[in-house]
Amino acid sequence: MSPFYKAAHTSTKAGSRARTGIITTPHGTVQTPAFVPVATKGTLKGLSPIQIDSVHAQLSFVNTYHLVTHPGHEVVKNAGGIHAYSGMQRTLMSDSGGFQVFSLAKQSRRASVRGDEDPMLVKISESGVQFRSLFDGQLIEFSPEKSMEYQIDIGADIHMAFDECTYNGATHEYTVESVHRTHGWLDRCIAYRRDHSHPTHIQFLYGIIQGGCFEDLRIESAKHLRTREVDGVAIGGVSVGESKSEMRDQVRWISPYLPEDKPVHLLGVGHMDDILDLVAYGIDTFDCVEPSRLARMGILLMIEGLHGPLSQLKWSELDMTKNEFKSDFTLLPIPQTILGIQPTYSYLHHLFKQKELLGYTIATVHNLLVMESLMARIRRGIEENEI
Amino acid sequence: MSPFYKAAHTSTKAGSRARTGIITTPHGTVQTPAFVPVATKGTLKGLSPIQIDSVHAQLSFVNTYHLVTHPGHEVVKNAGGIHAYSGMQRTLMSDSGGFQVFSLAKQSRRASVRGDEDPMLVKISESGVQFRSLFDGQLIEFSPEKSMEYQIDIGADIHMAFDECTYNGATHEYTVESVHRTHGWLDRCIAYRRDHSHPTHIQFLYGIIQGGCFEDLRIESAKHLRTREVDGVAIGGVSVGESKSEMRDQVRWISPYLPEDKPVHLLGVGHMDDILDLVAYGIDTFDCVEPSRLARMGILLMIEGLHGPLSQLKWSELDMTKNEFKSDFTLLPIPQTILGIQPTYSYLHHLFKQKELLGYTIATVHNLLVMESLMARIRRGIEENEI
Repeated sequence: MSPFYKAAHTSTKAGSRARTGIITTPHGTVQTPAFVPVATKGTLKGLSPIQIDSVHAQLSFVNTYHLVTHPGHEVVKNAGGIHAYSGMQRTLMSDSGGFQVFSLAKQSRRASVRGDEDPMLVKISESGVQFRSLFDGQLIEFSPEKSMEYQIDIGADIHMAFDECTYNGATHEYTVESVHRTHGWLDRCIAYRRDHSHPTHIQFLYGIIQGGCFEDLRIESAKHLRTREVDGVAIGGVSVGESKSEMRDQVRWISPYLPEDKPVHLLGVGHMDDILDLVAYGIDTFDCVEPSRLARMGILLMIEGLHGPLSQLKWSELDMTKNEFKSDFTLLPIPQTILGIQPTYSYLHHLFKQKELLGYTIATVHNLLVMESLMARIRRGIEENEI
Repeated sequence: MSPFYKAAHTSTKAGSRARTGIITTPHGTVQTPAFVPVATKGTLKGLSPIQIDSVHAQLSFVNTYHLVTHPGHEVVKNAGGIHAYSGMQRTLMSDSGGFQVFSLAKQSRRASVRGDEDPMLVKISESGVQFRSLFDGQLIEFSPEKSMEYQIDIGADIHMAFDECTYNGATHEYTVESVHRTHGWLDRCIAYRRDHSHPTHIQFLYGIIQGGCFEDLRIESAKHLRTREVDGVAIGGVSVGESKSEMRDQVRWISPYLPEDKPVHLLGVGHMDDILDLVAYGIDTFDCVEPSRLARMGILLMIEGLHGPLSQLKWSELDMTKNEFKSDFTLLPIPQTILGIQPTYSYLHHLFKQKELLGYTIATVHNLLVMESLMARIRRGIEENEI
């Protein structure tokens, strides 16, 4: 079998660490850098699996917390895993659930400051977190071991170690503790998987770099990851409330310490300008809900200059709900074969004004095609040492 | 060119007037009896045009009132007609707008009884109806001539004459007046079309049989239609509030007076049991929102015994939102090629519980496939004089 990750070309452009590569899992190969559309609850909102194929999405991302809440990891396991359950027969990544769990914790902390009754959190400790599902009140437990169990059952190809995503504004003192807790939890994840790997499906583990907004802690975390037996590395917590330049700093600091022989994922980041800047720091994959979420609001991502130099690339957003599109018969650049129609702006405007379901599908197909065309252009740019 | 309608086989079963036939329009041929899924606003809710193909829908139905309200008949006309605008490249029918217009009138009558301010109706008279759009307040006019103008612009293949759909509970005296008004309006529709036909697209006109719940008026209307130059006949107003047996009576009364050489459409009726009973009265096409509307509520139409005798056919509904389906991995009978997945009950249940868009699409595909399998079975049953 091919190795999980194979670096292809690293840009020779001064200051760049951009690289192309290939990730291989039992569910396919992924040319990197790649954008990872998010299918939170086991469905990429508005698209059938065949439509996901047609936008050339190489892989997708599911959320462990949401799937554990409903339908439950055991249901997905009994269905034969998330690929069979959802029909998404491509490389899938799952997160650890940590991000959502600690968001709940933060909300509950705020609630207790306000004197409200704690809405759902039951117990948080070094060993893990217990809380009641917002969906049906059942008691759910997250810990390094539980997160691994859930992710193995759900059955994505690439899993994330359970980590604490520190909240925006955490002190250096708190973040030191938190990073060390995340590192300890990684070792527990690795230990759990030694005894509990999936019987037939080869699944891969990424460790998570945390460290909040502190350069020393980010670097410590990145260096620590180099000493651990993981298949890849993910960078967590950079999208939590910081400004764009702070977010980029956090990736830049650790760029020299990222592994050469393992893929690097950036969690929750994927604006077009972010991607273009951050591949130069050595990021291979980006998951982000933004292109599909904007689509469902009627916002089309537009990109110009794909055939010119990358430095001239221009992007913008077009709000299809605006009345100026009512009689605009410009064709969207969606091949007829995908939906059986090459829709006009006018038709898409009509669908959004009338809240028709097909509008969400058309806009999502459009935005994901744009993301794929950007990623293909970036891969070519790296091969040609342009970026 | 083939004639618009060609009868094929009329059942020899005693008492049956069931028949097969072929409708031919510039956008395709339709084997009758046929079910007509409704695409009210120029989109069959939740399905792309290619998905509509895949459920073998032979034709579809759009609503003039809704399209005039948004995006406007002129926008659709300027787009090259509804086929180009919506990508639905199949035979399309449009209604006259009368049903919605007179529903508005009824609402407004109720509002004036309650002493509320008239919400939208401006003027109703022999010559037509004016009202303000609920969508954006614009003044919209409906009359026989206006309905024809709108339908020619929208550009479906088969149009309905402008009719008054009498309200449930109307007196005999009122209904006499109303039926005569509808007949007068038909002549105005025919006259308008002599001078204003579409320059390039051959479009067909159906006259409407009205008469409320009165046998004499229904028969008078059906007989009157035989004297008029129309391409087909539609039966209107039978689904407005009456019981199922009253509705069937209204079709049975006129069955002997329906034309042999023209297709017959039943407006707004399409439950499986209705269709099975009413094809025997000579109905060729049925439009109904029910299969797709139920689908969006998570209700699957189930049919059993398609390979046995028609008299043994069994149908039922399955509510996918019920918890009993959470771990039920029964496969839905949807070919994998349509969506890229043959979904399980469990997955569909999950999508409905989480209000995921893909659930609406899957259930709609399912219900329309079931309707098509019923219609194919009925056509075979007629050929074999079973019905």
